[in-house]
Amino acid sequence: MTSTQKGTIYLVPTPLDFGCDTSAPIADVLPQATLRVASGLTHWITENAKSTRAFLKRVNEVAPLTVTLQEMQITELPREIHKKGDHQGEFDAKPLLALALKGLDIGLVSEAGMPAVADPGSSVVMAAHQLGIRVVPLVGPVSLLLALAASGLNGQNFAFVGYLPQDSAARLQRIRELETLAMKTGQTQLFIETPYRNKALWEALLKGLQPNTRLARASGITLPTMDVQCHALKDWRSSHAIGDSPTVFAIGK
Amino acid sequence: MTSTQKGTIYLVPTPLDFGCDTSAPIADVLPQATLRVASGLTHWITENAKSTRAFLKRVNEVAPLTVTLQEMQITELPREIHKKGDHQGEFDAKPLLALALKGLDIGLVSEAGMPAVADPGSSVVMAAHQLGIRVVPLVGPVSLLLALAASGLNGQNFAFVGYLPQDSAARLQRIRELETLAMKTGQTQLFIETPYRNKALWEALLKGLQPNTRLARASGITLPTMDVQCHALKDWRSSHAIGDSPTVFAIGK
Repeated sequence: MTSTQKGTIYLVPTPLDFGCDTSAPIADVLPQATLRVASGLTHWITENAKSTRAFLKRVNEVAPLTVTLQEMQITELPREIHKKGDHQGEFDAKPLLALALKGLDIGLVSEAGMPAVADPGSSVVMAAHQLGIRVVPLVGPVSLLLALAASGLNGQNFAFVGYLPQDSAARLQRIRELETLAMKTGQTQLFIETPYRNKALWEALLKGLQPNTRLARASGITLPTMDVQCHALKDWRSSHAIGDSPTVFAIGK
Repeated sequence: MTSTQKGTIYLVPTPLDFGCDTSAPIADVLPQATLRVASGLTHWITENAKSTRAFLKRVNEVAPLTVTLQEMQITELPREIHKKGDHQGEFDAKPLLALALKGLDIGLVSEAGMPAVADPGSSVVMAAHQLGIRVVPLVGPVSLLLALAASGLNGQNFAFVGYLPQDSAARLQRIRELETLAMKTGQTQLFIETPYRNKALWEALLKGLQPNTRLARASGITLPTMDVQCHALKDWRSSHAIGDSPTVFAIGK
């Protein structure tokens, strides 16, 4: 299948600060090829148009945009697939790629980090493969993998399982299930939480895990407040309070 | 615990070209903060000293090194933990961090990509946490996550399981086990192979999987030869021959 006349879908990672702490230069977390490609795109598919415009403004400071922000075509993915993910098979993203079939390059972005990983976007990538459109992922910050590497937990065998249940009994059960899996197979289990629920999850972890299970917490990855720690449960101290920065959690052997 | 007087362990990602195709500028895949930190370090712990020197030579072209290559202190991790991983609990990396306890910053690198993820290094990170030494992961290319994002497979729930068995019967069994898991739980299963065995693994996948199972292949991530595709098994064509570039494979729903 030749697709030389078709456009390319670029997966464009964005800084992990959600536009909240933009004191760090964008070139500190995005390499030149990513900035160059992003600055040349005119069409975007995104989780959130507002944050994409803010992102492009920052790109423009170091790599001038080809067209003005007003001229950018920014299409938002439907809200309903944001949280539950694209993998319900209910959303067909092919219509969003009509211009790519005609030769136009399109950027796919999420609010922070890499689109389609713990973020919406995979339905668009899936549609691209179905249409024979080239998909090119660009280098940038990916909180899950930075957290895993910095945890010191097993990086040869790991899983990311998304969010845990909110109900406290169901959450405790899930925590123990993940712990059993990690201990039995050696597979590190990574998960995330909405920042304002960090504290509830943290307390549940301290309560639910065994003394020798290793528990890692990576907060504010790439931000000035970054803090990554990993200890056996029995070595975590109550002085290790958790804040409300975006945090990746991991349980391991 | 205060650790202001201690050094920091920086996890320094490297280009994915293994030094083989260095035509792309290093600043295309490593952002400025990564290059700046790398250029300022004088002590390294690595999978391979030779490739680390080659990497530092490339860093030097865009961010001048603080000391000469000859003055760099480069310590190799023991060979035996390279392939089987650091997670046997047999290797105590604490002695390697003696200077970090005295205030020196140390860089941790592998041959390509992010140390401690599908690569040696986690024993060093674990030791750092045990000694109360700060761990800072830097942004750079991570083939697994770039491959996952570009596959269009489920990025809300995924696992990386390392290498599959080499014995063909055991490999087939493992392939079917991973397929069953992916279909039952929706968890994307990622794995890798030594490039010269790509073809054998690829043929086993085509033979072993069900017609509707989705199979992704991401070769040469970040390289000029990059090729990422994902199709239901029945839609892969014999014209899709596989080469011997580093490749990430994934099975999903």
